[in-house]
Amino acid sequence: MTDCPLPLSSHDRILLGHGSGGRLTAELIERVFVRGFGGSVLARLEDQATVEAGGARIAFTTDSFVVRPLFFPGGDIGRLAVHGTVNDLAVGGALPRFLSAAFILEESLPLQDLSRIVASMREACAEAGVELVTGDTKVVDRGKGDRIFITTSGIGVVPAGRALSISAARAGDAVLVSGPIGDHGIAILSVREGLEFTTALVSDTMPLHDLCSVLLDHCPATRCMRDPTRGGLASALVELASASAVGVQIREEAIPVRPEVRAACDLFGLDPLHVACEGRIMAVVPAADAERALAALRSHPKGRQAAIIGKIVADDPGVVIMTSRLGTARPVGLLAGEQLPRIC
Amino acid sequence: MTDCPLPLSSHDRILLGHGSGGRLTAELIERVFVRGFGGSVLARLEDQATVEAGGARIAFTTDSFVVRPLFFPGGDIGRLAVHGTVNDLAVGGALPRFLSAAFILEESLPLQDLSRIVASMREACAEAGVELVTGDTKVVDRGKGDRIFITTSGIGVVPAGRALSISAARAGDAVLVSGPIGDHGIAILSVREGLEFTTALVSDTMPLHDLCSVLLDHCPATRCMRDPTRGGLASALVELASASAVGVQIREEAIPVRPEVRAACDLFGLDPLHVACEGRIMAVVPAADAERALAALRSHPKGRQAAIIGKIVADDPGVVIMTSRLGTARPVGLLAGEQLPRIC
Repeated sequence: MTDCPLPLSSHDRILLGHGSGGRLTAELIERVFVRGFGGSVLARLEDQATVEAGGARIAFTTDSFVVRPLFFPGGDIGRLAVHGTVNDLAVGGALPRFLSAAFILEESLPLQDLSRIVASMREACAEAGVELVTGDTKVVDRGKGDRIFITTSGIGVVPAGRALSISAARAGDAVLVSGPIGDHGIAILSVREGLEFTTALVSDTMPLHDLCSVLLDHCPATRCMRDPTRGGLASALVELASASAVGVQIREEAIPVRPEVRAACDLFGLDPLHVACEGRIMAVVPAADAERALAALRSHPKGRQAAIIGKIVADDPGVVIMTSRLGTARPVGLLAGEQLPRIC
Repeated sequence: MTDCPLPLSSHDRILLGHGSGGRLTAELIERVFVRGFGGSVLARLEDQATVEAGGARIAFTTDSFVVRPLFFPGGDIGRLAVHGTVNDLAVGGALPRFLSAAFILEESLPLQDLSRIVASMREACAEAGVELVTGDTKVVDRGKGDRIFITTSGIGVVPAGRALSISAARAGDAVLVSGPIGDHGIAILSVREGLEFTTALVSDTMPLHDLCSVLLDHCPATRCMRDPTRGGLASALVELASASAVGVQIREEAIPVRPEVRAACDLFGLDPLHVACEGRIMAVVPAADAERALAALRSHPKGRQAAIIGKIVADDPGVVIMTSRLGTARPVGLLAGEQLPRIC
C-alpha cells in the first residue's frame, strides 16, 4: 500500500489527512492496523472480508460515518451509512442481507434530528433489501463528539464460485466506471462553502447492490469492483495497481465528470480523481468482456453514463498513468494530505 | 421496555442519561430505534441478532465504546471493545468467530496510544479465539471527538437447536450470576475520582465465551444469559422480567459484591445493582438444573464465585423484587438518570 513506512516516533500524532483515504490513510492502515492486528484476511485490504461461518460464505464489512453537515443535497448521514455498507458488500459480489448500526450521540442532539436520520436509514434499508437487525447507542458529553457518528456493519452472502478481488486484475483487462465521478464530494463542498451552481448538484449516494448484480450476471468473469469513496477514483486505481501488481492506464477524456464538478474542482484546485463518489462502481473485466460489461451497466438506470476509461498493462506494476486530452501522460497518485475532511 | 413512552417534542434533546443503560436508554431504544426501524429481529432486544444467512445460523452484534479514561485498572478501551462484542455473541449461545473494528480518531491522538490499543485488541482477540477481519478509520477535527471511539461488530455461529432468549424464562427457574458484580464500574470510578482502595480493584473485563460454553455444555436447557454491563444487574433483571412477562425475586445476601465495591457504593450513594460488570454472566436455568449450573460455573476459573441469587415467579410479571438482609422487600428498577457516564 505504501512506500517504506517509517517506524512510529513519540511525536507522531493523528492528522486530519489520516482520514483522507489518500497516502496518509494508506500508511496508517499499513503501519498501525495491518501490522498491529496481523491476520491474513485483514491484510488483503478488500472493502469487505469474506469468511466461512457455519458452512456459509459470508461477506462482512464495517464503516464509521462522521460526515459534516448531517443533511446535505441528495442525502444525509443515515442514508450514507446504509449505502456505504451495502455497497462495500455488493462490490465484493455479495448479496447484502443484514445491517447493524451503532450510534455515538453528543449530549444535546435534538431527538428530532435523530428520528429524521433513523427514518432515512429505514428507507435506505428497504430500498437496498437489507434488514437492520441489531444496534447500540452511546452518549458522550457535550463538546466530546459532533452531534452524531454512525457505524454500520453488514453481512452478505457470497454465492458459490464468486471470488472478486482487488488482486485479480490481469494485463489486457478493461477498467470501467459506472457514471460521473466526484458528485458526492463536490455536493458536500458546495454546502460547506456556500457555493451556488447553476444546476443543483446533489450527492450520488445510492445503493449499488442491483447495479453490481446486473454486471455480474452479464459478466461473471468480472475481476473486481470497488466503490471509489474517500480518496476518489485515484485511490481505487492505485490500490488496484498495487494489489494486482499491474500498471493501469486511463484516458482523461473517457472519464465522465459533470461540468459543475469540473468547474468546482478548477475553482478550488482539486483533482476530480481525488473527489469522493458514493454511488459509483469502478470495475475491472477481461478485455473480451469489456463491451458486454459496458452494455450491462448502461442497461441499468444507475449506470446510464458508464464508460470504459482505460486498461490494465503489464508494464510499470503499481503505477497508474493518465493520458490527458492533450495527449500528455502523468502519473496518478494517492491524495497527499487532506482535501475535504469528513466527507463520509 | 418502558412505560408509555411520550411522543417526541421539539424540545427533546439527548441527555447523558440516554447512554446510562437505564430508564432513559430503554425509552430511547423503544421510542426512536425500535419504532423507527421496525423489524421483528431488532424488536426482540436481545444482545445479539440471530439470523439465517447462506444456510447458516449466524449471530450478529455491534457495540460502540467511548470509555473514559482509555486506560484503566484491569484493561483499556481496546480490550473492552473486543470483550464486549465477544460476550454479546457468547451469551446468545453463539461461538464467536469474526470481528470488525471501526475507529473514530480525534486529530492529535498520539499514534503510540493507538498502537498500544491495537496491540491490546490483538491480544484480546487471540484470547477469545476470534479473528479481526475488517475495519475502518475516520478522523474528526480536534474538539469534535475525544481521542478515540471504537465500534466493534461480531459474527458468531449458533449451533443447531440452540435458542436462548431473554423472553424464555418460566416460573420456577433459577437466576444465577457468575461472580461479584460492579467491579468494572467502580474500577472506572476509582480512576476518575482518584479513590484509593486498600485492595487494588481492577475491572472484571474478560471474554466469557469459555464460561458460557461450560454452562451450556452442562446445562443445555439454559433459558438465557446476559452480561450485565451498562445499567448493571438491575437492567438485565428488569429486561428479563419484562421480556418474559414474569416476576423475578432476588435475595440481597446471595448476590456477590466485593467489600471494596460495596464501600465505594456507600460512599457515592450508588446501588451495586446499577453498577456495570464487563466479565459476568447473569443466567436463567430450569429449577431442576440450578445446582448443576452452579457447579458448572464454579468449575471454571471465571466462575469460582458464582451464586444462585433468586428465582422466577409467576406473580407480578415485569417486576423485580429484592429481599434485603433484614428481610424487607423492595422493587428493583432501572437506573434513573445517569450514574457514571462513559463506563464502556
